[in-house]
Amino acid sequence: MTGDGSSAMAAATESIRRIPALDIESFIHRAFLKAGMPDGDANIVAQLMADADLNGSDGHGVFRLPGYIKRILSGGLNLTPDIKVEKERDAMALVNGDNGQGHLVMRYCAQKAMEKAKQSGIAWVGAHHSNHAGPASLYAKMPLAEDMIGLYAAIGNANHLPPWGGTEMLLSTNPIAFAVPAMEEPDVVLDMATTVAAYGKVKAAAQRGEQMPEGWMIDREGNPLTDPTKSDEGFLLPIGGPKGYGLALMIGLLAGTLNGAAFGKDVIDFNADFVTPTNTGQFVAAINIAAFAGIDNFKRSVDSVIRSMKTSPTLPGYDEVHLPGEQSHRKRLDRAENGVPLHDGLLKVLADLAEELDVGPLA
Amino acid sequence: MTGDGSSAMAAATESIRRIPALDIESFIHRAFLKAGMPDGDANIVAQLMADADLNGSDGHGVFRLPGYIKRILSGGLNLTPDIKVEKERDAMALVNGDNGQGHLVMRYCAQKAMEKAKQSGIAWVGAHHSNHAGPASLYAKMPLAEDMIGLYAAIGNANHLPPWGGTEMLLSTNPIAFAVPAMEEPDVVLDMATTVAAYGKVKAAAQRGEQMPEGWMIDREGNPLTDPTKSDEGFLLPIGGPKGYGLALMIGLLAGTLNGAAFGKDVIDFNADFVTPTNTGQFVAAINIAAFAGIDNFKRSVDSVIRSMKTSPTLPGYDEVHLPGEQSHRKRLDRAENGVPLHDGLLKVLADLAEELDVGPLA
Repeated sequence: MTGDGSSAMAAATESIRRIPALDIESFIHRAFLKAGMPDGDANIVAQLMADADLNGSDGHGVFRLPGYIKRILSGGLNLTPDIKVEKERDAMALVNGDNGQGHLVMRYCAQKAMEKAKQSGIAWVGAHHSNHAGPASLYAKMPLAEDMIGLYAAIGNANHLPPWGGTEMLLSTNPIAFAVPAMEEPDVVLDMATTVAAYGKVKAAAQRGEQMPEGWMIDREGNPLTDPTKSDEGFLLPIGGPKGYGLALMIGLLAGTLNGAAFGKDVIDFNADFVTPTNTGQFVAAINIAAFAGIDNFKRSVDSVIRSMKTSPTLPGYDEVHLPGEQSHRKRLDRAENGVPLHDGLLKVLADLAEELDVGPLA
Repeated sequence: MTGDGSSAMAAATESIRRIPALDIESFIHRAFLKAGMPDGDANIVAQLMADADLNGSDGHGVFRLPGYIKRILSGGLNLTPDIKVEKERDAMALVNGDNGQGHLVMRYCAQKAMEKAKQSGIAWVGAHHSNHAGPASLYAKMPLAEDMIGLYAAIGNANHLPPWGGTEMLLSTNPIAFAVPAMEEPDVVLDMATTVAAYGKVKAAAQRGEQMPEGWMIDREGNPLTDPTKSDEGFLLPIGGPKGYGLALMIGLLAGTLNGAAFGKDVIDFNADFVTPTNTGQFVAAINIAAFAGIDNFKRSVDSVIRSMKTSPTLPGYDEVHLPGEQSHRKRLDRAENGVPLHDGLLKVLADLAEELDVGPLA
């Protein structure tokens, strides 16, 4: 697990290096600063992105930096946004992100939700004119610090999914995340796309020259598509068929339409268009546990649920039952001690970025 | 579609009769009244159950009446519950259902959520000591009347699902429902179990002597189980594998653990035990659209999303794209005009019930 390339692990690990999270954070900070982001904001975004890498959200940490920087240098992001509440009541707010970096907007929204939920018991804060904010779990987990349950959902920044039975890509992988605190056990954190596979997994399979299993994608005739280099010829499949389509649609209506953010035909493919504002929509909700129950009692009950799941006998082929967030928790412990594993391919891209920006390299 | 048994449709329809919804409602009312439920409560429950039948929720309307009556006659339900708020803040309440009929408890919760959301913008009301309340969509749809979005989830009343990779049935099909109002188009209403198939579909396949498709259930070795008469030898599969397991778990924590209701090992199988209080947990949330946007503008935007989905070209084998709730809406129009189709088998059971209770028969 330490990625030192020794003995039998050499073949599998020689293309991976372990980089301390603090080095990653510092590099991201340098890059944003050089691209023109104010120091305080660059600090916040760098910390959240490095946090994503620590948590094992490999497609949402430093991996995203080149795309974010490209958007800034293309003039597609507002570096000095006036992020503010446009409408609010006791238990809700609608936030205008002013086309700022999504991490800043969603951190603002999560804090606002926690602040309101302290009094009102629950609060829901939606955003429009936001941008890609990294993994959903980051914002669902923020309320945990105040002994609250977190809920987050977002409209993905590219459409890869048609409505069920259709062929026009009008939906994204629209992820949803929940975080529930435990006492002695790791917190329960679910962070899932509403598609069987996230699009990043398709791209990763293509990079590795591997075939995809049936069930990830279909082509325009409805046949299984297993060659990831042909992903442009088909679309992702939602979980549970029409159910996952329904979930993606509902998240779109709640995170997009309700907030006045882009949904459906209006979604910009942010991997192809680095200039047009994305008008990304997201929401975060915080549920104040103290309003419902004694906090310690609740957390102990969550421990008890976790333990009952963990002690279930297993199916053939399964070593153990996992709780949502458990594997991320283990990765975090490992990565905090041994560094974040980054592929040579990504390290090369980041080295090129350092040269382009003329900032100190990552490692 | 009228079920009159004419010509080519004879074989398919001869075992079905169309019964006016008002007759169903009146029969349910008579049965509950005779079983000892106060008149006003019997009215409310009968109306909601007939509504479920009109909406096409065939497993949640009059079909459930014999089980409900059996629970009452077994002493498992409180006929004169003191349904009340135990804890509340501006945007939340925790309701004790006092072991009353679930429909009464959840209607109370939905009304409380709407009342609070008028001021606070959103409200979330959880319940414990509730009971089975019929289809999730009933309560998600209630806030539509006040131009609010509804959200509902419940812990199912029997465990049919192990944690992912396990074999101990610790989870139920835990359904979730969302309802979003449109302007000219039918409202968008998603009501879904977090399993590929609801358990009622397994029982229906067994009744019809049909095999199940692969993907609905597996046996204790992890192999596909397709014979519905052997459903006791296996368990339901969650949508998207570990994702559906994660959703069922999160709904359990939110609707059960947070409310002090039964979840996991504590869930009573209400089809086997008609005496022990179920301590069912559910929650309903109402989001006040006016807090976020102009109501008409929002509804028009929803219409526009619906139309963009409907006009997507279709995959081979699909005649049209459906929105969640669209087929239920069509069924409602048909059933309101032509009656609710009930199978002879169910009609026989209801005739027996009428005799047992000594009330006027359904038809």
